[in-house]
Amino acid sequence: MSAHNQQVILKSRPKEMISISDFALKQAAIPKAADGQVVIQSLYITVDPYLRDRMSGNALQIGLFELNEPINGAVIGKVVESKHPGFKSGDIVIGHLEWADYSMTEGENLSKLDPLQKPISTAVGILGMPGMTAYFGLLDIGKPKAGETVVVSAAAGAVGSAVGQMAKIKGCHVVGITGSDEKIAYLLKECGFDAAVNYKKKDYVEQLNKACSKGVDIYFDNVGGQVSDPLFNLLNLYARIPLCGQISQYNKSSSEMGPRILWPLLSKSALIKGFFVDDYKKQYPQAIREMAQWIKEGKLKYREQVVAGIENLPKAFVGLFKGENIGKQLVKIAD
Amino acid sequence: MSAHNQQVILKSRPKEMISISDFALKQAAIPKAADGQVVIQSLYITVDPYLRDRMSGNALQIGLFELNEPINGAVIGKVVESKHPGFKSGDIVIGHLEWADYSMTEGENLSKLDPLQKPISTAVGILGMPGMTAYFGLLDIGKPKAGETVVVSAAAGAVGSAVGQMAKIKGCHVVGITGSDEKIAYLLKECGFDAAVNYKKKDYVEQLNKACSKGVDIYFDNVGGQVSDPLFNLLNLYARIPLCGQISQYNKSSSEMGPRILWPLLSKSALIKGFFVDDYKKQYPQAIREMAQWIKEGKLKYREQVVAGIENLPKAFVGLFKGENIGKQLVKIAD
Repeated sequence: MSAHNQQVILKSRPKEMISISDFALKQAAIPKAADGQVVIQSLYITVDPYLRDRMSGNALQIGLFELNEPINGAVIGKVVESKHPGFKSGDIVIGHLEWADYSMTEGENLSKLDPLQKPISTAVGILGMPGMTAYFGLLDIGKPKAGETVVVSAAAGAVGSAVGQMAKIKGCHVVGITGSDEKIAYLLKECGFDAAVNYKKKDYVEQLNKACSKGVDIYFDNVGGQVSDPLFNLLNLYARIPLCGQISQYNKSSSEMGPRILWPLLSKSALIKGFFVDDYKKQYPQAIREMAQWIKEGKLKYREQVVAGIENLPKAFVGLFKGENIGKQLVKIAD
Repeated sequence: MSAHNQQVILKSRPKEMISISDFALKQAAIPKAADGQVVIQSLYITVDPYLRDRMSGNALQIGLFELNEPINGAVIGKVVESKHPGFKSGDIVIGHLEWADYSMTEGENLSKLDPLQKPISTAVGILGMPGMTAYFGLLDIGKPKAGETVVVSAAAGAVGSAVGQMAKIKGCHVVGITGSDEKIAYLLKECGFDAAVNYKKKDYVEQLNKACSKGVDIYFDNVGGQVSDPLFNLLNLYARIPLCGQISQYNKSSSEMGPRILWPLLSKSALIKGFFVDDYKKQYPQAIREMAQWIKEGKLKYREQVVAGIENLPKAFVGLFKGENIGKQLVKIAD
């Protein structure tokens, strides 16, 4: 156990592109548990793109982070002190906690890890929020049918790579949109995608058209902006667009202009649905069971990119917006 | 029975704004029925905005109209000659027929009028395609709940006025978007809307914000473009947008730019769904029964704007795009 407690605080609200200088480290005391409280040592802290909106966006869902206070998000940790009847020292838990070596909670949103979640890091990855996002966005909103074409953006990320593989399990033709040769190789060789295109290339639209020669039935969008624009010309009748992320837009200070999309949507009788994965919470256990089985059978692979040390949290977070990660980006805080 | 047969043909493909000079009248012989055929005298011909797309658009659904051939669309008529077992002289029918005094069919898409459809003109209006569009778009996609705010564009049209009144029946706060003081008065006094705003006024957005002080739960869109842009800043969580028409875009030769909407949709977990009313065909009888009952009870009113003479068809059609109609625009061809 480290003898001190470092926290990552939000120093300034990012105006456009977020930078590591928007964060700072702060020394704090290790919290002590009063009645009903639990103290947790962080083991893994996950960085997720949606947190960007809580730094300077609309933050409609859960409110803006306070300046000069610790960021909070999903953390896997170990209970080191408990005066809460539901938890005891040594429990491995997942919760919405501070970006810190140690944090304290009264047990709200804290739960012991599902034994299916092995290794424990998967609880914030393939069997956690990103995996659930992929599962319910694709299956509940996308409703893939065998033979359909499914396109996913940010395809090499934690969500995108799971979406594509599950679409393959459902018998679809799967096309990934990503940003490097290394990621394309990952999608084709490791994840079994049928095609992958690089949105940074000049012939992106041409390559996309070629990869989607039968049009697009499902577009699982994590990115938005210019990456997504050409998709609206490729939609098939009754296309479905699960709207999961808009990572291209999170660092904009005002709303961008783009081609209008209502007419293409209307003329294809298409559906767009934004969703919060939390709304599916009651169905998580069933999804985790099914995905754990697919992992066991080798049908669903995942990659974790782990960096060590709480001081590297800001860099890992900023890296999400620079396309630096393949699979789930994690920061390991302690063993 | 008139002694000759005039047809309205498409003379040229409109480039942008459609004009009556894109049409011409053509003299033709009155068709004679061979075995299995039916000859119909037109009584009412309806003009519907969606036909614009078949003149020079993508016409994805049913293909472009041929140049120098009669336009076709929904027609109410009387059988004047039949060698088809399903129809006899004197039957009042509705079908997808030529814009002409007389037309011939082998019975496909031809049906005898439902006795509920009285007066017969309602078969192409409140109890026809526009009414069905309002009913299924609002109830099946919009799913209004009492107390919610429902906004509809092109509110004084055949579809919009029905949408707003049905939303009132469901207990919603209803706001109409329209383009003249006369139409505003119609919506407030005759249709019972709670508020109506004029999109042509400088303070349109301000007025809209005021009328939607609790945000927008359902936006039934017939218009798109700049009329619809401000709605995306007003959406409530889990908002629904039945996408019915994009009349502002039909006369554009290329796709317009506008504010990107995917991020607002995502942040509100909202849904957009384009739809073809034909997909609900099996459920029409139940909808017609329910709407006929509402009409009987005085809860659902409709207005028909009738112009006489086949030579006025082009002007009536073009008028749709100039906002000239209140309620359903019909052309009466014969008594």
